[in-house]
Amino acid sequence: MNIYDIAKLAGVSIATVSRVVNGSPRVSEKTRQKVLSVMEENHYTPNVFARGLGLDSMQTIGIICPDVADAYMARAVSFLERRLKEYGYDCILYCSGHDQEKKEEAVDLIMKKRIDALILVGSTYTGYGDDDSSSVEYIRRAAGRLPVFLINGKISGENIYSVYNRDEEAVYDAVSRLIRSGRKRILFLTDSRSYSVAQKMEGYERALRENGLPVLGELKLLTENRIHLVRDILLARRTLEYDSVLATNDALAVGAVKCANAKGLKIPEEMSVIGYNNSEYSVCCEPELTTIDNTAEKLCNLTIDNMMRLLKGEEVPAEVPVECMLVKRCTTDF
Amino acid sequence: MNIYDIAKLAGVSIATVSRVVNGSPRVSEKTRQKVLSVMEENHYTPNVFARGLGLDSMQTIGIICPDVADAYMARAVSFLERRLKEYGYDCILYCSGHDQEKKEEAVDLIMKKRIDALILVGSTYTGYGDDDSSSVEYIRRAAGRLPVFLINGKISGENIYSVYNRDEEAVYDAVSRLIRSGRKRILFLTDSRSYSVAQKMEGYERALRENGLPVLGELKLLTENRIHLVRDILLARRTLEYDSVLATNDALAVGAVKCANAKGLKIPEEMSVIGYNNSEYSVCCEPELTTIDNTAEKLCNLTIDNMMRLLKGEEVPAEVPVECMLVKRCTTDF
Repeated sequence: MNIYDIAKLAGVSIATVSRVVNGSPRVSEKTRQKVLSVMEENHYTPNVFARGLGLDSMQTIGIICPDVADAYMARAVSFLERRLKEYGYDCILYCSGHDQEKKEEAVDLIMKKRIDALILVGSTYTGYGDDDSSSVEYIRRAAGRLPVFLINGKISGENIYSVYNRDEEAVYDAVSRLIRSGRKRILFLTDSRSYSVAQKMEGYERALRENGLPVLGELKLLTENRIHLVRDILLARRTLEYDSVLATNDALAVGAVKCANAKGLKIPEEMSVIGYNNSEYSVCCEPELTTIDNTAEKLCNLTIDNMMRLLKGEEVPAEVPVECMLVKRCTTDF
Repeated sequence: MNIYDIAKLAGVSIATVSRVVNGSPRVSEKTRQKVLSVMEENHYTPNVFARGLGLDSMQTIGIICPDVADAYMARAVSFLERRLKEYGYDCILYCSGHDQEKKEEAVDLIMKKRIDALILVGSTYTGYGDDDSSSVEYIRRAAGRLPVFLINGKISGENIYSVYNRDEEAVYDAVSRLIRSGRKRILFLTDSRSYSVAQKMEGYERALRENGLPVLGELKLLTENRIHLVRDILLARRTLEYDSVLATNDALAVGAVKCANAKGLKIPEEMSVIGYNNSEYSVCCEPELTTIDNTAEKLCNLTIDNMMRLLKGEEVPAEVPVECMLVKRCTTDF
């Protein structure tokens, strides 16, 4: 018997049980009575909530990301660990890869640990954008037992809290700028089929449509996240015509810049390139990359803020969208 | 009373106690009797060692690194996590920063968790190369309670296991090549005073001395690990003359390449640059960096192999040096 069982039996959310226990005035008298009676029937006393959401608290948070060697994940995990330590929490880290089976396995395994909450870093955990698909069922199952926080992912559901970038808007804006500066054939370069990529693709297509340009399959390229491979694939496609690139991460964009350099094209005059993430890659690159900053630190901070408020029994928003920011450097002429 | 107390009372190493318990023939009869009698006196029975080194096993390993946002650390933690999971172990991650106080605090905190072993990633934990200094006392203290594994660090002591790069030799070799290709004023560019940097500095000085070149203080530059800052500092030093750079990591080397590009110097003819780590930065850079690969994956694998053998009661070497590898790209002419 734990707080989740009490919430279920009382037909309320965990946050509501926590508010009752913490004496918050933001609960109706009727709900308060109902929760208290369920607790009484089950010999459950408020003092078990002394620390956060339960006596069980190990002051430990589970973090799962696809691979911490990825620059974006590494930065996110570093922020999260630092903030959690400030609050006296430890973190257990799992790297799950991108395969559905491995992701489910990682969540199942980490749920066996005594953790107070789970953070999933990366939009890969949202599936392919279909919120109701079976591919996120394992996350809903986890949320039945403890609060789940998504960083740059979005799933609706009880006890799931999503902080995510407005990727659709960011790409719509960037591609619109490319079009206004005269580009007509914009290559969409990506390395995965995550929720975030689906959002970016939508922004790309909307910008083309609204500007009367065709959406062409040949201008959408799915490849691997390896700089030299991207360069070589682009060099090999001799008949592929494009005057600019919108890449869904900086490494892909660096590959595109290297291809343009190898072809002797002038950047940005003959080839414009926009990356994503504002990682260190974007300043290593020559010329330095214009890139969309997905404000990883902000997403992490908002997540930890929400988590700490929730663990204190306060109400927190289920969805927090965050604006991206275009960082202008040398691979675009705007 | 645990295996460490038994080892102390018997005046033998933990590995020896483990060997006795596991019935290894590699223990003298005299030692075996001594250990067994200490165990008997203390009502300690071998079956407590059923799982690894103790009944207490949580199948959890503590990992501390300065900052997992650093590309080298991120890669190392990713490797370690993957290998540990294969063996059914979880990992708790702490990022300690580089301050002595914070490092001691991180080790103290993680020692309160139920972990089976501790891994310290990065030579910052070795202090400044003085093996007997008080700056590593906190690590020796931790090793009194569980096995400590250093990745690219070296501390002698009971229950401490070090896997580290032959950094002195790698830099000696690289600087010797620069000299043979005609370079006379080689800038040593670094961002810290770790044990690893001390080793690299020794290799640098030895190569100069053995080739009859002076060791000059003005050609040793300590800066921060930020690409644009390094470029700007080098640009600002108008009177500093150098014809080549040996940097202790790739980001510093990229800064040096950007400075040379800004000055319009031809690379490698007028300016040779060698980085360290063979990170993604080295292929982002234009021209691409010649760099010393510190084989992070190999160090991590050797560490996990040793740990798993130790936890099974086998004997493992206290020190494992690993050769680095020069990766030749476009910023040198050899």
